[in-house]
Amino acid sequence: MESWVDGQPADVLSLKDRGLAYGDGLFETIAVRNGTAVLLERHLQRLETGCRRLALRVDWGTLNAELDSYARSLGDGVLKLIVTRGDSLRGYAADPSSEARRILQGSPPAAYPATHAERGVNLFPCSVRLSEQPLLAGLKHLNRLEQVLARAEWNDAQYAEGLMLDTSGRVVEGVFSNLFLVREGVLITADLGRCGVAGVMRAELLFQAESCGIATWITDVSLEQLHQADEVFVCNSVYGVWPVLSCGSARWSAGPLTRKLQTLARALLDV
Amino acid sequence: MESWVDGQPADVLSLKDRGLAYGDGLFETIAVRNGTAVLLERHLQRLETGCRRLALRVDWGTLNAELDSYARSLGDGVLKLIVTRGDSLRGYAADPSSEARRILQGSPPAAYPATHAERGVNLFPCSVRLSEQPLLAGLKHLNRLEQVLARAEWNDAQYAEGLMLDTSGRVVEGVFSNLFLVREGVLITADLGRCGVAGVMRAELLFQAESCGIATWITDVSLEQLHQADEVFVCNSVYGVWPVLSCGSARWSAGPLTRKLQTLARALLDV
Repeated sequence: MESWVDGQPADVLSLKDRGLAYGDGLFETIAVRNGTAVLLERHLQRLETGCRRLALRVDWGTLNAELDSYARSLGDGVLKLIVTRGDSLRGYAADPSSEARRILQGSPPAAYPATHAERGVNLFPCSVRLSEQPLLAGLKHLNRLEQVLARAEWNDAQYAEGLMLDTSGRVVEGVFSNLFLVREGVLITADLGRCGVAGVMRAELLFQAESCGIATWITDVSLEQLHQADEVFVCNSVYGVWPVLSCGSARWSAGPLTRKLQTLARALLDV
Repeated sequence: MESWVDGQPADVLSLKDRGLAYGDGLFETIAVRNGTAVLLERHLQRLETGCRRLALRVDWGTLNAELDSYARSLGDGVLKLIVTRGDSLRGYAADPSSEARRILQGSPPAAYPATHAERGVNLFPCSVRLSEQPLLAGLKHLNRLEQVLARAEWNDAQYAEGLMLDTSGRVVEGVFSNLFLVREGVLITADLGRCGVAGVMRAELLFQAESCGIATWITDVSLEQLHQADEVFVCNSVYGVWPVLSCGSARWSAGPLTRKLQTLARALLDV
């Protein structure tokens, strides 16, 4: 489907855009089913948090209308929204009155092998570490070189995702997923106060788990805790939940809590 | 002057470019005098280091020819070169055989107040810290949100630059400059093994100082060392050298070694 820039069909962008120059912007990757953007409220919440932290001014009324209209045209697929601070003045200083540029791109539904969800996946243990920057932690911003380097570490289709630690050795997330573990019935995921992307599916699963009376714990996670987990899974807002079978020498099998949350995620994504 | 993309006049870029999506690329900001790119060999050296670390494939012969031709057309001004990994596949994975996209942009000579070089400048003490990521340290890559946030901390023209520390509190650099101090005749600058941009002018001044028999020391620098310095200056490859007069409560005056190196930098930039 054709892309839109500020509501107009376009396949190119100004060379002066600060998204290119500095990665000065944010993005959201949104599943679209039957013309509806899935978990849109959560995507917009995260985007708003990011815009507040980066002092990006967005015309929310116009953006909402564009998202609605674009999703209806797309039907089924993946909508990528990028907002940037628009064209650059010279140097890092930005015009504080400028309004964010809105870029919408559409693609067909993600085509992951069905076995990822059914059987589970193996994680490649990435050696690239996530640097710790509390000011940017949690945001889905356009500075993603760490993910690019981590994803380039493996080229073997037996690994569907990679595991990323932070520079202090804590377990944080996948390259394009959040990570959960289950230990004695408690659903555990990493605290993202120093690094990592606060995924929309992560937030939804935490909410759903709490609604079902499942105990949740957001905390620092060590490799030892990961190895001792009863269940491990990764999630994102496009593919839902994949059980994790292995990472390095550690082995797990798809457990009941993983399957329960996978079913909840699937219900959302098969709207 | 018109911009070029892969050697062709253009003012727009594909929306799929990985420079926009992930900041997946590098840049160089090069002073041009009388049709010649100043310190071009050092810029190309840093770019090559960056391309090696990011596994970016550049057609160096073509790039060199374009830089030469563009600089001749520009005459006097600033040439910004961006190389990106080109258009994206879906997700972070890149096509390892793809060749980098070359973007050249020209602008008039930088118009900083002459007093910055003559009298000196005040540094704003930025609260934004540089995160520590050895894999990216030293490179002039396109992930520059920390600089954007730091530059947004002040809007008062009395500050020409800002001072940035790393997350451990070490003194690293300016927002768009490297920082030097002089203590008992020794020229000191921060080790950039964890974060920071290894500036071309920084490298040239270290080389020139050593050639003149001035002792140099690349090391971790504390705020206390900065405060106790006899002289402090900032530098980059566009403006040369600015003496630093103050940062927070600390005061310095433009000293003899600063003036000597400033003269050397000016000789390069006034080719």
